[in-house]
Amino acid sequence: MTELKGDERLDYLLAEKLRIIQSPSVFSFSLDAVLLSKFVHVPIQKGNIVDLCAGNGVIPLLLSTRTKGKITGIEIQERLFDMAKRTVEYNQLDGQIKMVHGDIKEAPGEIGYSKFDVVTCNPPYFPTPSQEEINQNEHYAIARHEILCTIEDVVRVSSQLLRQGGKAAFVHRPGRLMDILSLMRQYRLEPKRLQFVYPKAGKEANTILIEGIKDGSPDLKVLPPLVVYNDNHEYNPNIRRILYGEE
Amino acid sequence: MTELKGDERLDYLLAEKLRIIQSPSVFSFSLDAVLLSKFVHVPIQKGNIVDLCAGNGVIPLLLSTRTKGKITGIEIQERLFDMAKRTVEYNQLDGQIKMVHGDIKEAPGEIGYSKFDVVTCNPPYFPTPSQEEINQNEHYAIARHEILCTIEDVVRVSSQLLRQGGKAAFVHRPGRLMDILSLMRQYRLEPKRLQFVYPKAGKEANTILIEGIKDGSPDLKVLPPLVVYNDNHEYNPNIRRILYGEE
Repeated sequence: MTELKGDERLDYLLAEKLRIIQSPSVFSFSLDAVLLSKFVHVPIQKGNIVDLCAGNGVIPLLLSTRTKGKITGIEIQERLFDMAKRTVEYNQLDGQIKMVHGDIKEAPGEIGYSKFDVVTCNPPYFPTPSQEEINQNEHYAIARHEILCTIEDVVRVSSQLLRQGGKAAFVHRPGRLMDILSLMRQYRLEPKRLQFVYPKAGKEANTILIEGIKDGSPDLKVLPPLVVYNDNHEYNPNIRRILYGEE
Repeated sequence: MTELKGDERLDYLLAEKLRIIQSPSVFSFSLDAVLLSKFVHVPIQKGNIVDLCAGNGVIPLLLSTRTKGKITGIEIQERLFDMAKRTVEYNQLDGQIKMVHGDIKEAPGEIGYSKFDVVTCNPPYFPTPSQEEINQNEHYAIARHEILCTIEDVVRVSSQLLRQGGKAAFVHRPGRLMDILSLMRQYRLEPKRLQFVYPKAGKEANTILIEGIKDGSPDLKVLPPLVVYNDNHEYNPNIRRILYGEE
């Protein structure tokens, strides 16, 4: 039986299909991770997929419902890695998902160059934390700020891990769009699909989803907008479908 | 009285406020130009504004309803320049709008470096026309393809014309987003506002609107999506407002 430690709880994911270990003292998964899991193109029957900055494993877990391929999750924080490992165990997905405790910057040397069909990453979004933020909660600071890995690390490592024609999909903030696009091109991950997420109709986008193909030809498509909440602060139907797996 | 030549007609613009000379044998203004005229930030009481690749003058004309500043329009095609000039005359806007016949690449030398507060441009969208396309209608080919000016020319010249802190606004296709963003940064026009235009709900974007500030700080906002048609193929209310000036 899977052990829950301290303040951990076992939350539902996708209605009641999956359970995930979370804790208020570390970073919980966000809608962004869920949207990325749905956005990325994955091979259905087989393939090698790797999720960088995997946190408590929400993306590997969600991807397991969309593919029969093997999924590797890499997480640098011992505490989150440990939660993710027990979550995989609890859902009896050990055969499909392998969690690795380590630094993504060393991942290609450890799990192999040009071996993967798909890379996903919901990276830390914010460039520079204050010392105060780091002191308050190191787990949060590392998950949210580019302390242990920058967006350039993520893009470079993704490119190293991918085979030619493989796909990398990231979620980030619109303010970093330019950096991500130029880094992707610089590291041979040609941007192909871009989608903007708006919190409500008439509001500015607060999230971007982007997918590139290693050594792909330039041809960027901007997908239909995703609007999260309706005017009554409820999830819109397309978001409910993604979150609760109603389809 | 303003003369109409050959197959020209005098079309309405913004309900019945303005009239514009158009002709089926040259490029007519498109919704893109109208959206750009509405998208760009302009000073209300005064200022120097220049529209590059002005065609039959639709953008200068529309901007004249939003600002008391001086507006210069530059068009390389004699035929279109001539139509624009007569349109300005017809609308008695000679005091505010000045049309210039010339190549935008020589514009800074002729109308001045770092003298403008705002530059707009609805440039040719497509990189390489076939000889057949050029033969069929040279006016269309020049307006639609990067024959006489490339997107790099547009961005470089815009930057040369703008004072520090001045704004450049362009309309283009999503497939060129990456090129435009990198050229803007390269020529010191930091992208600040980006808006995507979708033909219908659930469809991919087919147009982008982007505004940058000369020597501005990096901070890109993605504005709410614009959706042009509803499911009955009618313009949505926000588009009607922009097109017919109902506000």
